[in-house]
Amino acid sequence: MSTYLPDATHAAAARSWVASANAPACDFPLQNLPYGRWRRPGDSDWRLGAAIGDQLLDLAEAGLVPHGDMNRLMAWPLSERRRLRQALFEGLHEGSPRQADWAAALHPQASVELGVPCEIGDYTDFYASIHHATTVGRQFRPEQPLLPNYSWVPVGYHGRASSIVASGQPVRRPWGQTRPPEGGTRPRFGPCRRLDYELELGLFVGAPNALGEPVALGEAEAHLFGVALFNDWSARDLQAWEYQPLGPFLAKNFASSVSPWVVTMEALAPFRAPLQRPDTQPAPLPYLDSEDNQQQGALDIQLEVWLQTPAMRAAGHAGDRLSTSRAADAFWTPAQLLTHHTVNGCNLRSGDLLGTGTLSGPAPEQGGSLLELSAGGQQPLRLSNGEQRSFLEDGDTVVLRGFCERPGWRRIGLGECRGTVLPARTGSE
Amino acid sequence: MSTYLPDATHAAAARSWVASANAPACDFPLQNLPYGRWRRPGDSDWRLGAAIGDQLLDLAEAGLVPHGDMNRLMAWPLSERRRLRQALFEGLHEGSPRQADWAAALHPQASVELGVPCEIGDYTDFYASIHHATTVGRQFRPEQPLLPNYSWVPVGYHGRASSIVASGQPVRRPWGQTRPPEGGTRPRFGPCRRLDYELELGLFVGAPNALGEPVALGEAEAHLFGVALFNDWSARDLQAWEYQPLGPFLAKNFASSVSPWVVTMEALAPFRAPLQRPDTQPAPLPYLDSEDNQQQGALDIQLEVWLQTPAMRAAGHAGDRLSTSRAADAFWTPAQLLTHHTVNGCNLRSGDLLGTGTLSGPAPEQGGSLLELSAGGQQPLRLSNGEQRSFLEDGDTVVLRGFCERPGWRRIGLGECRGTVLPARTGSE
Repeated sequence: MSTYLPDATHAAAARSWVASANAPACDFPLQNLPYGRWRRPGDSDWRLGAAIGDQLLDLAEAGLVPHGDMNRLMAWPLSERRRLRQALFEGLHEGSPRQADWAAALHPQASVELGVPCEIGDYTDFYASIHHATTVGRQFRPEQPLLPNYSWVPVGYHGRASSIVASGQPVRRPWGQTRPPEGGTRPRFGPCRRLDYELELGLFVGAPNALGEPVALGEAEAHLFGVALFNDWSARDLQAWEYQPLGPFLAKNFASSVSPWVVTMEALAPFRAPLQRPDTQPAPLPYLDSEDNQQQGALDIQLEVWLQTPAMRAAGHAGDRLSTSRAADAFWTPAQLLTHHTVNGCNLRSGDLLGTGTLSGPAPEQGGSLLELSAGGQQPLRLSNGEQRSFLEDGDTVVLRGFCERPGWRRIGLGECRGTVLPARTGSE
Repeated sequence: MSTYLPDATHAAAARSWVASANAPACDFPLQNLPYGRWRRPGDSDWRLGAAIGDQLLDLAEAGLVPHGDMNRLMAWPLSERRRLRQALFEGLHEGSPRQADWAAALHPQASVELGVPCEIGDYTDFYASIHHATTVGRQFRPEQPLLPNYSWVPVGYHGRASSIVASGQPVRRPWGQTRPPEGGTRPRFGPCRRLDYELELGLFVGAPNALGEPVALGEAEAHLFGVALFNDWSARDLQAWEYQPLGPFLAKNFASSVSPWVVTMEALAPFRAPLQRPDTQPAPLPYLDSEDNQQQGALDIQLEVWLQTPAMRAAGHAGDRLSTSRAADAFWTPAQLLTHHTVNGCNLRSGDLLGTGTLSGPAPEQGGSLLELSAGGQQPLRLSNGEQRSFLEDGDTVVLRGFCERPGWRRIGLGECRGTVLPARTGSE
């Protein structure tokens, strides 16, 4: 299944001449080399970069990729992608003769704007965590938390590409219709009162498939470029009123945030894991099943959600960690999501984004959204400074973090995906 | 509400020096002037054209628009769009001094490839026909065909942009999972057995709105560029199994077909109609209501679905007309759909596509899909040559047609949206 086996570019002892990359807790060591888009303040065109420590290497200035089109890079065949990773690894390695040239192509990440990693043509959101689906389903249908199709279908739906924003961009609380008050028939209309985050991974498509040509499970990983952090902001009160019968719409499409650095499938090679499928669940249908997928189809990425309230910010408090979970606890692997998406012939283009859906763990405190952590608002969370939260309040900052750690390998990080809630627009109801 | 009032470019007596445009039944008279993209066989780049009779005028060769980027044209301010329409009308008018120059910029539509009209960033599908929603809802929930939110929410969901194809391109029958057989738990997997069409209009967005900036109802028409025919092919058996709880996905995203010519809101100015809202329904919430919208928010477009089976084709039979309906019977107007879509701050980009949803009429024979016309497959249609259809069979060609006719005005047509069903890929289950 995994198309990428660990090689010399993953050797834990390898060090970079970029000193910040060698710090043990660094997300972007020489073994990672994720790609993103950046520009100088005031520039309009994006440039391509690879993160290394707290710097980025401009791919054009380093003579590696002459253009600024990430989607084109994502479409490269595997051999070209490997060649680029190898060139970056060698050129950024301690003692490389390129250091003299490339030092001028380095830019501090903190001094530039980091964008959405590519032009996202279509964005699909899945529902791959059985723990999330069960907890949320129980709130709506206590007698049948999981619908019968969940065991068989990697449930997904299409989302909005235009409103995907870069990490750091604030997100405005949306207005919308919500359920009529008890006993009434006329819905309320006003600012969302149950604003939530969703902790997800975003999988970026690499090589495209043609319309009408499904991608078999054994080929699916070759069509994945890499992984970023993804916050699918959700207006729970809008969602509850609008979502039947065609699914979520305005409850989701006001904004989603994505982290700037796409960690490649190559970089993740040492961090594969077996699929954790509960014994009570049937084996997948043959088109979604293989020994390889069972043994190493999952990604062993550790995930965290942090919340910093305005009061915390004022007190110089970095925020509370609300939850931790693992991507490897998902019910479906990235390859299964991609194969299912194309089994009807649907075409995926380079740069398309597949959200995993909220990645909650099996324990109640591992919920990847406030909807789960506060039991639908019934049990507010008590924060370390004494504040409480059922849902997000104006000024709250949500930070998603992700990283891989395993004995014998360098830590690989996904960086962070950050967003702050702005108050709703003023207006008349 | 309607931003465009009839003017001299709608005068019924105006005739073109392009003779085919003056035929009474012509879809593309001088008063229409829809825009589309075309290319010569073998070319890779699209060019912009305006349809006139059975010809098209290349906008670059005519010196009107120097580029081939329809999305840029769609983003033009109203004043620029009016200027272009006026220039086309005058230059193609009988007796115009431009005839000598522009004759060389004419190309027979039949000799070129007509494409999807623009690059579609995001595609949204609505559910705007209460007749469709009621008939389909009755099949699933006889006791409550319409859910309580239908009266208030212009229900919509996101669809797939990558698989929208041009009229004329064949559509392959998809594979997928369907419900387990009676008494079983394991779903079937194989080619779709309940393939259907959906008769829709596609509304193209003109001027964009910024993320976080809703478009008020009174401004909504200024953000609409024009209208095309749209067939949202649907795999009903896949849909029934997959759609809960997040909505349709693989049942829809294998293909949608769009007609090549976008009829502008300017051209449709003489064909506005009052909103037909049943007396039993409440008035919309204030953000979706205005006197203008009630009086002339709807589009008086007549719609038809035609089916030609392989046996008909072999016999030289043009096909049966399966249904007729009217866009003006929709429960929500185009402006209401656009305003609702942005009320939470969602940004629409030039060239984005809003499908109306299936436009069925109030009578049972006016269903805009086979699901409705065959009562979910229970009552097969008898065709004029003795064949029967519950759902589409391989080789069937579906043609959507649309036009406006009113005494005192020239007929304005949308042309046709055509697609033929290819057999499913062969493969093992």
